Amino acid sequence: MTVHLVGAGPGDPGLITARGLDLVRACDVLVYDVLVSPELVAEAPADALLISRAPLRQAEIDGLLVEYGRAGLDVVRLKGGDPFVFGRGGEEALALAAAGIPFTVTPGVSSIAAVPSAAMIPVTHRGVSDRVTIANGHGVPDDPEALTALARGGGTIVLFMGLERLGELVSGLVAAGLDPSTPAAVVANGTLPQQEIVSGAVDELAELASALPTPALVVIGDVVDVGRRLRAAAERHHAVVA
Amino acid sequence: MTVHLVGAGPGDPGLITARGLDLVRACDVLVYDVLVSPELVAEAPADALLISRAPLRQAEIDGLLVEYGRAGLDVVRLKGGDPFVFGRGGEEALALAAAGIPFTVTPGVSSIAAVPSAAMIPVTHRGVSDRVTIANGHGVPDDPEALTALARGGGTIVLFMGLERLGELVSGLVAAGLDPSTPAAVVANGTLPQQEIVSGAVDELAELASALPTPALVVIGDVVDVGRRLRAAAERHHAVVA
Repeated sequence: MTVHLVGAGPGDPGLITARGLDLVRACDVLVYDVLVSPELVAEAPADALLISRAPLRQAEIDGLLVEYGRAGLDVVRLKGGDPFVFGRGGEEALALAAAGIPFTVTPGVSSIAAVPSAAMIPVTHRGVSDRVTIANGHGVPDDPEALTALARGGGTIVLFMGLERLGELVSGLVAAGLDPSTPAAVVANGTLPQQEIVSGAVDELAELASALPTPALVVIGDVVDVGRRLRAAAERHHAVVA
Repeated sequence: MTVHLVGAGPGDPGLITARGLDLVRACDVLVYDVLVSPELVAEAPADALLISRAPLRQAEIDGLLVEYGRAGLDVVRLKGGDPFVFGRGGEEALALAAAGIPFTVTPGVSSIAAVPSAAMIPVTHRGVSDRVTIANGHGVPDDPEALTALARGGGTIVLFMGLERLGELVSGLVAAGLDPSTPAAVVANGTLPQQEIVSGAVDELAELASALPTPALVVIGDVVDVGRRLRAAAERHHAVVA
């Protein structure tokens, strides 16, 4: 009886870890996020109990994990990305710890690097950027401290966010000191077949991204230009990007 | 004939991705980093050419990838962590692009989140931190702009580094405004059986970590206390941390 918090990776089902896949294939109960690929859910044993977290509040999920763990079952809590990076895995782990249920944590490929990778953007690149700041972009437009830290921090900025407030976010960053000509990109459906990328100067980003589906990943910094060169080369040589 | 840049993950061989493992098992040539697990190198086909990157300079690696790719072989360049996060994968990709060799990029689990995870430290946690800055700690003590950005940026700080300059780094951060009582941890050999963790206030970190092997990962921020609570619970309940 153990509850395994497992990272499913950024979307593409091939990007779960080897151990994560073994755990899914051996579980009694699978509690999975909305964004987890159906192919991964289908890897659970035929008699496993499958529970989508979609209709559940966080406290209900915590309660289910405790309940099934206490019943002596092997439970996999399959979470998008990495359980401990913008994933509330810490909250689930604390709930299990408080209830005395054994648990493990299996890291996953986080979108923070994998989605830029899938757009061929290295978040660090020698001579270009040796520092990356990652934030949930949702509340940033209302948080002057966060805007200043991001605008003046140097290095690459990576933001998870819905795109509704992208214009506000960019205005806030530029007002806080970010150069409006800084290269930037938005990647929607990163790592999936329907992935879409737009890129340009940060002050044109909201307009460029206006037709993209949400949520998406925003990357701001000179590394975006490295990505543009690599994508152009890959298209010339018909390379397939995993 | 394709060169695949593949992330091997943070050390534990179970943390390579399912696709990465498939590529290793099908390659003609495997060029691998020093820190890649021997178990993963052993997954290459029996007749594959195995090349350690240990004695090679970056330009020599780039040259080998181009040469074997041009010879029509399937080459896997197996890199620690994620190829595009502090991994020089961008440079290798640019060299392949310039030579007209088709290439793919398969993201990996980066140490930046997986090593804190293995120490049960969530790099973000609701109400504690919603922002993370990651840097190569090596040159930071000499870089006033980086020290200021890290000390005043808020959120969690994650640094890859050798530990020789940890004392200098901490002094620099505190001089730049970081609260000396901020919780901090050093994780050596993260995700491996010989993993070691020390934690305490950031101003005692260098002393606490003086006996740890190098390189290591340094985590600074209030999330370190969440990790301490989770490790204590895991020890009580004999949980195994993946």
